[in-house]
Amino acid sequence: MAAERTEAFRPMEWTGAAIRVIDQTALPGRLLYVDLANVDQVVDAIVRLAVRGAPQLGAVGALGVVVAMDEGAREGWSSARRDAAIDSIRAARPTAVNLAWAVDRVRLLIPEGRATVLAAALQLGADDEAANRAIGRRGADWISARLTGRVRVLTHCNTGALATNAWGTALGIIRELHARGALEVVFADETRPLLQGARLTAWELEQYGIPYFVQPDGAAASTILRRLVDVAIIGADRITANGDTANKIGSLGVALACKDAGIPLIVAAPESTVDVATATGDDIRIEMRGDAEVLEWGGIRVAPAGARAHNPAFDVTPARLISAIVTERRVIEPSLGHTPACSAPGGALPTPRGTGG
Amino acid sequence: MAAERTEAFRPMEWTGAAIRVIDQTALPGRLLYVDLANVDQVVDAIVRLAVRGAPQLGAVGALGVVVAMDEGAREGWSSARRDAAIDSIRAARPTAVNLAWAVDRVRLLIPEGRATVLAAALQLGADDEAANRAIGRRGADWISARLTGRVRVLTHCNTGALATNAWGTALGIIRELHARGALEVVFADETRPLLQGARLTAWELEQYGIPYFVQPDGAAASTILRRLVDVAIIGADRITANGDTANKIGSLGVALACKDAGIPLIVAAPESTVDVATATGDDIRIEMRGDAEVLEWGGIRVAPAGARAHNPAFDVTPARLISAIVTERRVIEPSLGHTPACSAPGGALPTPRGTGG
Repeated sequence: MAAERTEAFRPMEWTGAAIRVIDQTALPGRLLYVDLANVDQVVDAIVRLAVRGAPQLGAVGALGVVVAMDEGAREGWSSARRDAAIDSIRAARPTAVNLAWAVDRVRLLIPEGRATVLAAALQLGADDEAANRAIGRRGADWISARLTGRVRVLTHCNTGALATNAWGTALGIIRELHARGALEVVFADETRPLLQGARLTAWELEQYGIPYFVQPDGAAASTILRRLVDVAIIGADRITANGDTANKIGSLGVALACKDAGIPLIVAAPESTVDVATATGDDIRIEMRGDAEVLEWGGIRVAPAGARAHNPAFDVTPARLISAIVTERRVIEPSLGHTPACSAPGGALPTPRGTGG
Repeated sequence: MAAERTEAFRPMEWTGAAIRVIDQTALPGRLLYVDLANVDQVVDAIVRLAVRGAPQLGAVGALGVVVAMDEGAREGWSSARRDAAIDSIRAARPTAVNLAWAVDRVRLLIPEGRATVLAAALQLGADDEAANRAIGRRGADWISARLTGRVRVLTHCNTGALATNAWGTALGIIRELHARGALEVVFADETRPLLQGARLTAWELEQYGIPYFVQPDGAAASTILRRLVDVAIIGADRITANGDTANKIGSLGVALACKDAGIPLIVAAPESTVDVATATGDDIRIEMRGDAEVLEWGGIRVAPAGARAHNPAFDVTPARLISAIVTERRVIEPSLGHTPACSAPGGALPTPRGTGG
């Protein structure tokens, strides 16, 4: 059955001594695997977006704790130095709550030894795949209950197997719809400045045989208001207690267009993305990235000398614009007044994790 | 006085035998002038966006009629062949009403001889500069009457001297605010796929000494909802009788964000952009451009083999989202129910020009 098909590529695996990941900056041109065997390599891969996507950052961060333990043992680090190294992984990207959450979760186990930490980190990746598949089913169910026929979906950024560890979140719902024969076409925003949509989402959709168009981010509002799509599905890097959602820059524009057009906006994310310790989106620290991502292309200057960029990595979509937040445990409908902290239709209340920004 | 300062560059001039324009595809790296001396060169320059911007397309189109007359005389064309050549200029880009309007206006004069046609075409360019300066003053007045202190402005695409013939429309208002000491900073959307914002608007702002940031188009909604700007000002390629406005793809997203945030959206355009023969935006034919603009970069493939693009050149912003349309003759406030066809605060009713899509 198509829904059970696994990717031909391995977004992430543990070699026994290193985290083997796909260098996503080389896609779609090359499928290049790199081994992250020390803390500097882990941090560097996170910072330059060789690995990315909130769930994958969680899995890489958790295994990064093992890498730090191994490097510390090799190099004779003090526990303070090892802790600082783990902190540097935890802080490599500030907005994605999963990274800090996963690091904190497994570092607690360090006193129990490397085997325990490694098992917990690997379990986290396995749990993530199961969560993604549950999100896919739950999201597809929600859509099928509201929209008949094969749906046309707009998505932003990359939320597939590359962004997670397997299957995907928003793209996981899209894959599930496709497996059910309920998908017509995907409009994938190219997602400037790093083009995760044009490079990664398009590449994944090619692998899965899903029909799609790549469009400039600026086309999203028009595509939605012209009713070329029936629903928009995006991921999340952090969801606050009231349902506000930080996601890749450009998501807010998608949300405003959905609201205006009266089509649903779905946010798909594992429970680990829900940060009930942060009250609202106003409390989220937004990562600002470097000018070169906007002003240069492949090392060639696009803008004139002297130009400066405004390059926030994320924006915050207010809860009022979100039709449904789909996690592996529940569907929350923020635009109807439900919040992650105070309502749990179809599931239990989340466990507060104290992972505030 | 700063407001009277003319550009150090010449966006367009008539050499006596050719239209000399800046090849805007070479900016900001090189300031390259090219001569358009036959109809094929005129059409090619328009199609590949070496010249662009609705008002400049009007001026180039008008002079293109002279080029066609000269080429026809050199080559011994029949009047039917000459008319077909002029039609090819008129149709080189379908959405910008100014192109067809200007071509139609001067071709009527062909029976009166080349000198008359040339004079009319040159007058059109001169009128355009005067119109732009009037738009700048009127728009700055409208803003100053509503916002105190130095304003922060978001703009999309390029609407400056490069897009017109001198001064600019939306960027003309920005320049006027700057000249009055009433401007703090500009957030310029990079404007994918061809980056007219990052390349051209940024280049112009450098020339004028105006502080600015370049941002990805996807950042516009966030910049607006976070109140980093006080007003958004855009141009127009076509304004219909009810006030709906076609402009560069991405403008609609800016408009939706302004509406949500409660900040004004101003459309700046000469009266020649108003097309009262077209009832609403639904009747505007939207130009679809090629896949390569989205899927390639400098000839290098960005998206995977097999990808297709959805690449509309324009979107339509409904009148309800537009606070003010500023022309050289009047300010229309569509969100208050005023329309270009039925209301003319501060000026006379427009002359219908019969330039429908």
